[in-house]
Amino acid sequence: MIAAYSATSQARVNAALETLFNAPSPELARLYEAMRYSVMNGGKRVRPLLAYAACEALGGKAEQANGAACAVELIHAYSLVHDDLPAMDDDDLRRGQPTTHKKFDEACAILAGDGLQSLAFSALLDPRLSTSDAALTSDHLRLQMVSALALAAGPAGMVGGQAIDLGSVGLKLDQKALETMHRHKTGALIEVSVKLGALASGRAEKDELKSLQTYAQAIGLAFQVQDDILDVESDTETLGKRQGADIARDKPTYPALLGLDAAKAYALELRDQALHALRPFDAAAEPLRDLARYIVERRS
Amino acid sequence: MIAAYSATSQARVNAALETLFNAPSPELARLYEAMRYSVMNGGKRVRPLLAYAACEALGGKAEQANGAACAVELIHAYSLVHDDLPAMDDDDLRRGQPTTHKKFDEACAILAGDGLQSLAFSALLDPRLSTSDAALTSDHLRLQMVSALALAAGPAGMVGGQAIDLGSVGLKLDQKALETMHRHKTGALIEVSVKLGALASGRAEKDELKSLQTYAQAIGLAFQVQDDILDVESDTETLGKRQGADIARDKPTYPALLGLDAAKAYALELRDQALHALRPFDAAAEPLRDLARYIVERRS
Repeated sequence: MIAAYSATSQARVNAALETLFNAPSPELARLYEAMRYSVMNGGKRVRPLLAYAACEALGGKAEQANGAACAVELIHAYSLVHDDLPAMDDDDLRRGQPTTHKKFDEACAILAGDGLQSLAFSALLDPRLSTSDAALTSDHLRLQMVSALALAAGPAGMVGGQAIDLGSVGLKLDQKALETMHRHKTGALIEVSVKLGALASGRAEKDELKSLQTYAQAIGLAFQVQDDILDVESDTETLGKRQGADIARDKPTYPALLGLDAAKAYALELRDQALHALRPFDAAAEPLRDLARYIVERRS
Repeated sequence: MIAAYSATSQARVNAALETLFNAPSPELARLYEAMRYSVMNGGKRVRPLLAYAACEALGGKAEQANGAACAVELIHAYSLVHDDLPAMDDDDLRRGQPTTHKKFDEACAILAGDGLQSLAFSALLDPRLSTSDAALTSDHLRLQMVSALALAAGPAGMVGGQAIDLGSVGLKLDQKALETMHRHKTGALIEVSVKLGALASGRAEKDELKSLQTYAQAIGLAFQVQDDILDVESDTETLGKRQGADIARDKPTYPALLGLDAAKAYALELRDQALHALRPFDAAAEPLRDLARYIVERRS
């Protein structure tokens, strides 16, 4: 059951994240409060779940991926804080709560986002978050993880996707252009969540990493297609943000491009691609499989 | 002569930085252009100089610190882009040129800054920037460098300093509070520039790192005191930004706190502390000594 695995993952990553927001001096209290507010907001923790599940799929203990899980969630959280800013998507609500710049102020939200990005790299290497498992003491592996995170979060990855997205409003994108955008904007971080989790197991072989990458690419895209479908079908209360927000902004979406039914069929096809990529893995990969199924079934 | 050493350092780091801004796909051209614009703007490259000079002070080759030099400059550049935003300092000019959000737009400036921060961590570990020197192949050392950079750039360092600064406008800070702000806002990155350069030499002993830290703390503060003095004394053309900008915003400054003459005396005292800390070092540390002298003599 993905619900149980998800709840366990959430509790594990939330406990780890909570340790990161103690202001080292009173002058920094407000900044740390804004960072905590931006992160400890009841998020679904899909990316940490992916890191844990990838680690376990390779026979590692989930705890080995704690640093990775925190890091990808911190990157995700910072991107939401900046994405919500008036100069970007100008959103007042996030998961039913005031966005960080509404709760605090714009300058504080910019800095909280900036700080969360740095904190992600600190967390990835934070010895307090890692277990003493020998696999994790490989410095070479940890350097690979840092480089992978920086690449996925940066201008050739997530930040690039945000830039492509902003440049696409009002344009008629074809499916290829839309996928280029999503592969950067959300796909890169989902992919690296799986990769970091796999590397944290200390047991990742090259062909396993390749299979997991195919899996991650498929669910990353499926996640986005389903998001677009939900933006059309769900209501504001369930979604925790304004329903129809993408349409209102004339943003390119899969339902707009393919039609709603074809978009739903595409999401299912991507789920099947993801499951296919996991065929070489044993029962330890079941949470990853469950997640692939959940992504296209979720209602929020 | 610091002028010659500075010119050499600038040319070296600029050549290395230039390699980082080739957009991997046409969709990302504008983002990469905005990042390049934010970095390749004739900056003085004080932080890269510190990294190179610290590396050489310990007997390393300057090139070994290329990744470190790029990383600290990229962090510095991103902080300026975000600091100039309307919600922050709202500056239209930077080094006599339109700020990034003026040249591009606000959303692009936010993303360019975000991307530059990720890029700093990529650059620090970029094998294309490193020499093949054996000292640099120590994974353990490189991990130390990543952690140090993340800490210095993050909420307990530079970003925290920005937050303290924003929270201090209009307040009557005492000298201790002012120094807490500067130690975070500018001091942390200057300190880590020296530290990363020293670590990149592959020869840094514990007591040498300690001496270099004392040096870096002193010049970091001296740099800020002199900046405050220049804000009072220099003119807009020389400075490349509005003269009296700090006073106009009622920001706390050393001249406002101590009086102009006492602020000048304090800058000289800090220079002497910096030079004192370098006493254990031989002639290879001369560029670091020259810089300490230059900081309090510069007119812009």
